[in-house]
Order: sequence, then C-alpha cells, then structure tokens
Amino acid sequence: MVMAYHPPKSRDEAVATDRHDILAHAREAFDMEGGLVYLVGHSLGPATHNALDALHQAAHYDWRRGLVRSWNTADWFTLAKRTGGQLARLVGAKPAEIMIADSVSANLYKLASAAGSLAASSDLIVEEDEFPTDQYVIEALAGMSGVTFHRAAPGEGLGKLAETGGVLVHSLINYRTGALRDMAAAEKIAADCGGVIVWDLSHATGVVDVSLSKAGARLAAGCTYKYLNGGPGAPSFLYVRKDLTGKLESPLPGWMGHARPFAFEATYTPAEDITRFANGTPPILSLAALSGALEAFEALDISLVVAKAQALGDLVTRRAGELGLDIRSPLDASKRGGHVSFAHPNAHEIVRALAARNILADFRAPDTIRFGLSPLFLRFIDVWDAMDALADILETKSWDKDEYRKRAAVT
Amino acid sequence: MVMAYHPPKSRDEAVATDRHDILAHAREAFDMEGGLVYLVGHSLGPATHNALDALHQAAHYDWRRGLVRSWNTADWFTLAKRTGGQLARLVGAKPAEIMIADSVSANLYKLASAAGSLAASSDLIVEEDEFPTDQYVIEALAGMSGVTFHRAAPGEGLGKLAETGGVLVHSLINYRTGALRDMAAAEKIAADCGGVIVWDLSHATGVVDVSLSKAGARLAAGCTYKYLNGGPGAPSFLYVRKDLTGKLESPLPGWMGHARPFAFEATYTPAEDITRFANGTPPILSLAALSGALEAFEALDISLVVAKAQALGDLVTRRAGELGLDIRSPLDASKRGGHVSFAHPNAHEIVRALAARNILADFRAPDTIRFGLSPLFLRFIDVWDAMDALADILETKSWDKDEYRKRAAVT
Repeated sequence: MVMAYHPPKSRDEAVATDRHDILAHAREAFDMEGGLVYLVGHSLGPATHNALDALHQAAHYDWRRGLVRSWNTADWFTLAKRTGGQLARLVGAKPAEIMIADSVSANLYKLASAAGSLAASSDLIVEEDEFPTDQYVIEALAGMSGVTFHRAAPGEGLGKLAETGGVLVHSLINYRTGALRDMAAAEKIAADCGGVIVWDLSHATGVVDVSLSKAGARLAAGCTYKYLNGGPGAPSFLYVRKDLTGKLESPLPGWMGHARPFAFEATYTPAEDITRFANGTPPILSLAALSGALEAFEALDISLVVAKAQALGDLVTRRAGELGLDIRSPLDASKRGGHVSFAHPNAHEIVRALAARNILADFRAPDTIRFGLSPLFLRFIDVWDAMDALADILETKSWDKDEYRKRAAVT
Repeated sequence: MVMAYHPPKSRDEAVATDRHDILAHAREAFDMEGGLVYLVGHSLGPATHNALDALHQAAHYDWRRGLVRSWNTADWFTLAKRTGGQLARLVGAKPAEIMIADSVSANLYKLASAAGSLAASSDLIVEEDEFPTDQYVIEALAGMSGVTFHRAAPGEGLGKLAETGGVLVHSLINYRTGALRDMAAAEKIAADCGGVIVWDLSHATGVVDVSLSKAGARLAAGCTYKYLNGGPGAPSFLYVRKDLTGKLESPLPGWMGHARPFAFEATYTPAEDITRFANGTPPILSLAALSGALEAFEALDISLVVAKAQALGDLVTRRAGELGLDIRSPLDASKRGGHVSFAHPNAHEIVRALAARNILADFRAPDTIRFGLSPLFLRFIDVWDAMDALADILETKSWDKDEYRKRAAVT
C-alpha cells in the first residue's frame, strides 16, 4: 500500500508533511552540509556515507593493502555485475539482466549495434530533441555500419519505428522538459512492427517507475551519477532481457567480456551472461563508490520514492504557476520525471541569485531553469523555502543587484 | 648524462647499489607495507600517497562539498586532458597529444577505426600472440565495418602491413615474454607502405623508453594501472599526433567530445583538439587517483627510470639463468620490457610458495611465472632476496609442502 504524498499548501503543512514522511530517514544516508538546498541531484547526486566508505575501503584496504590480490579477495572481477544486480530492482529487472560498464554513450552504441540482429530492419532512428550524445552515437554507428539513419522530429520516433521496423534509441524522460514516455505503449508498437527500442534511462532511474520486465523492454542503458548518487562520472549501467543475452553480440568486445578471460585465447568467445557486454578493465574506484551509493535505496519501497518525487514536483509546478512562470514540464505528475523546467529571460541571473542564498539549481542555455527533485534527501520544507526564495528574487528582481553576482558560486 | 646501473653480483653489492641509487627517494611516494616484495607492478601498481590524497580531495571535498559546482571549480571538465598532459613526457609526446578516456579496448577500437582514413588500404591486422583484447577489438571492428581482417602469425604483422598498407595494432611489449619491439623501425615500414600502426603501450609506459614523436608514431593507446600506478582499472590513455587530430573521426562520439558540449546541438561537431576522442562523462574518482599517481614521475629523469628497470631485469635474468630456469624473455635488456617471464611445470605452486614468503609475483596459465620490475619502488635488495627465495624454493621443492599451500594468498 503506497502512502499518498500530498504537496503542502503552506509552510506549516510542509513541516507537517516532512514530520510524517515515511522516507524521511533516507536523508540520513547523505553526507551534506546543513542549510544547503540541493536541486541539482539530476545532474550530480550528492555523496552518501556508504559511497564514501566503500570508496575508502576500495582505495585504502583493497588497493593499498590487498594490491593485485584484491581481484580475487575483494572480488573485483565480479564487481561490475554485482553492482548491476544491486540496481536491478530500481528498474524492474532481474539482477542477472543488469551490469555496469563504460559510459552511457558507449553502452547505447553497443546495444543499438547488437539490436540490429533482433530488428526487422537495420534502420537506426533517434529524435532530434534527444540528449545529444544519443544522437551522435547513433548517427556515427549508422555511418560506420552503412545503415540508414533517421533523425525524426520530436515525437515522431515511434512513427518512424512503426514504418521501418528498425532500432529506435529513446529516452524515457526528456532531459529538457522532464516529460515521461509510456514505455509499455512504445514496446507494444515495437512488438507489432518487429522493431527494437533501446531505452536511455539516464534521467529516469531512481525517480520514476521504471518497469522494464513488465513493459516488455528488451534493451536499455542509463547513467548512475544523477538520482542514483554514484559519484561524478560514475560508470553507466546496461540492461539486456535475459532470454536475449545469448543472441546478442557486442561490437566492442574485450577481454573482460570473454567466457574464459584467463585462458587468453586469440579469438573471442563471449561470456554466456551479460558480462559479454564488458570490454576492458572497469574503473574499480568509481565502481566501488557507486556500489556503496546504491545501498541508500536498499530498504526503500521504490513506489514510495516515486510518489514523493511526484509530490515534490507538484509543489514546484503549483507554486511556479502561481508565480506566473513559463513552465516547460508536464503538470500531470504521472507524465513527468524528477525534474521541472521553466523558461525565463533572466534564467542565468536567477540561478545565480538562488545560489547566493545556498539553493543550487541548474541553468541550461539560453533561458531554462531546472529544479531536480531528488526524493531521498530533499524535504518538502527545502522545496517550499526554495520556492519562497524564487518568489522573492522574481518580485524584487534581485538578480540585478551586484551583491548577488559577486557572491554567486554557480555559472 | 645517465648514471649507469649495474646489476649487483652479491647481496652486499645489492645493498650498496641501493645506497647509491639516485632514484631511491622515488620509493617514498608509495604507501606500501614494509617487508612486502611486490613483483606485480606490471599487473596493478601500488598506491602512492598522492594518488590516495587526490582521490580523497576529489571525493571528500570536490564531490561531497563542491557537488555539481566542482565541474567548474575543480575543473573536472578538463581533468581527462590535464591528466593526459601529465603523462605525455613519459611517452615522448606533447601534452596536447594525450588524453585519458575509457578502457584500452575502447581506445584501440576508436583509433583503429579512425586510422582507416590515413591508411592506403582499410585492411586490419593483428598478430595472433597479441594481448587478446587487441585481437577481439580489431576482429570485431573489421566485421562491423566490412573490411578485411588479418590475424598474422607472431612476428609477421609488419610483413602483412607492408603487403597491404592497412592498419596494424601492435604492442610495443609482448605481454607474455616482455619482448620490446623497435618502434622507429616499424614506423619506417609503415611510412614506406602507406600503412598505419596503432601502438598498444600497455606494458611499456613508465618502464621503457617510449619516444612516440621521435619514432614518428601517429596513434597509440595504453593502460595506466600497471607501471603508472593509476589504481585498479584506472582509465586508459590515447595518443594522436597533433597534426593528425583534426583529420580523424572517432567512431564512438559523445557529448564530452563535442566542440560545444553545452550548446546541446543535435549534430556532432568534434572538438578541435584531442578531446574529440572522448565520448561520455569520464569516471572522475578513478581519474583523480590517476592524476595523483602520475605525480610520482614528475621530477624523475625517465632515462634513469628505464636504466634502473633494465638493471633490475638483468639481475633477474642472470640469477634465473644460474638456477637453470627456462627464461622466456630476451636476455638483452635493450630488447626487453619491464617484466621477465620463466616457464616451469610447477609455476603455480612456486608463485604460491613465494607469496607465502611475502613475495608477490604473477602466474599465467599453464606454466609461466612473471616478475615485474617496477623501478620506482623496487630496491635491488628486494629483487636479490626474491631470487634467493626462489632459489631456496626450487632447491628444497618446498611447493610440495602443505604449509605453503595453506598460507598461500595468491592464485
């Protein structure tokens, strides 16, 4: 039974909502300075105590003292797969269906290439408002493998998929607007036309309901340094539906993906399991921090996490509406990810003025302010006060004041 | 003027050689347990104080306190390029010619693909005793781009290059035998036939003379977790000769390699400089540790480092010869990298028996013992005593004793 969160209508209500918040304890996992309101968890999640501890263990014991022995004694060989397993529940997958490897860019490349063998046609499709990396990678892959590339207009990717039966790279959440796509409906279209969707879950994981198995998704990748708090540049995860693993080939093999890496064989025999999507040696220190970070989610009901994120977002959209802001995100929480965007001609100055009040938000050129609502560490009172500050800045136009410019820490 | 190191002929001479060693202070950079003789620096280099400090700074200050601001305030955006610059001197390149990115596997893939536009033919060549990843990656790349793949017999890669004018992936040092290739002579052959060599410097960097510019090398990649002590799975480096950068395209682009990453443009315009070979967000924590590790080399004359490594290797080969061991590495130090291999039917048991005496070495199936001679932290007395221990183990056949099996820590 999911407790409903209701966005508070007053500061007192915000305090009361926090007092009754069943997820309130999740904030204790984080090592953050008091007084800071951090609305940028969708760009870089903050450090948890366990992430820092896991990193310390990996560096100061396993590397410094265990040295090369730690590949066995600390089981570094399976760390990428074990860490993937920790993440599986957050995206509605089985542990064996997820591993950590490389960057999102590299994983999208690998999966979109491998998907060719499953799809009715080899056409590659991406929408022109997708996160840029997705577009670069898929266009380059098409050029390299000599297949047809379609850069579809926003919202027309699924239509092009239905038309071609090719491979579509598709973000579950739009990185600008926060708009959430319907995964199950999209997979239905893919199943009907013989096409394949490679999902980019970068802005989704840890903040919206991602039910890969239930939705019939076959392939996905995503980043781990946003709502998962894995650390700066933490390595990416990839998902391959279990029954498909053995049928798929990575275009970027490497010794860590071999069935018998220590036989040092001249020819490549991919591992039976998802490890076949590994290539070289993974960055163990970054991976260890990620593994520790994921512990913050371990005992949490993900549907509660999603419900709280939605209520935090509703609080922002409602108050932003009252302020007359130009909201660029869906108002219906069930169609929105974890961030809310608004446009303002003075967006840059406003974000600086917020930073001067110890409220960190994102600016995206030319005119967008993004608030990321990370439900594990944000309180309703934090978001309420941030909206108060925003209201004050807008009313007093205090971004014109030199003092804010001077004190500003964020560009 | 390079001080000549002479391999000692007695234990007293070893002590004296250490006492006069102009590089003796380099050992102080390392945070290692006393009494341990670590002959596995060619598999995973030990931690330095500065690597651990840089990691602490990145995790506890830049991430934990700076949060997303650290992309600017700690200059994470240029860390991959700056760290590459630190490494340049060790491989005889200019700082702008090196960057850190991804794994060796991914970088070989990128460079071998990009090299196609420079070579007279698109054929891809690799020798069958190359490190397996090099073979897997190049064979997969050939399959993907539909070009001819040649797995040449050992020693016949250059002949195949001369015949085809294609692209050869070539290790400077053989990972099994430690044999060192002549880079300048190979580049001469490449220049004559219009072919291109992509060098794998994994076993070479930090221990032999690598003079990329002087030898006329155009492309290279290598790992950083061996003699460079960058940490477990530390990200790889890649080298592109400066005049070629603008002509080469990465098959694996990404937003971090874009000329204007924050314009979020739909189409890819590669950065002017070597940053074009980046793809996704790099693993900052692992990268920070590497950056700190490279400081150990900063004030050292690399020709001295090479001379010491050679003398340590000579000490091993000479004493191994006296023990009648089947040495699989070149006896001439100028033709050998930083490790010495011998074959023995009881190699596995011998490595375990050494480990029981706190001497760590590598076993490679089925019958190979590898000693890595890392000149920054190894003393002549360490290697002398390791050879004494080896002699004792061989003479007493103490690998047969259960006690060693039980105490053994390394497999």
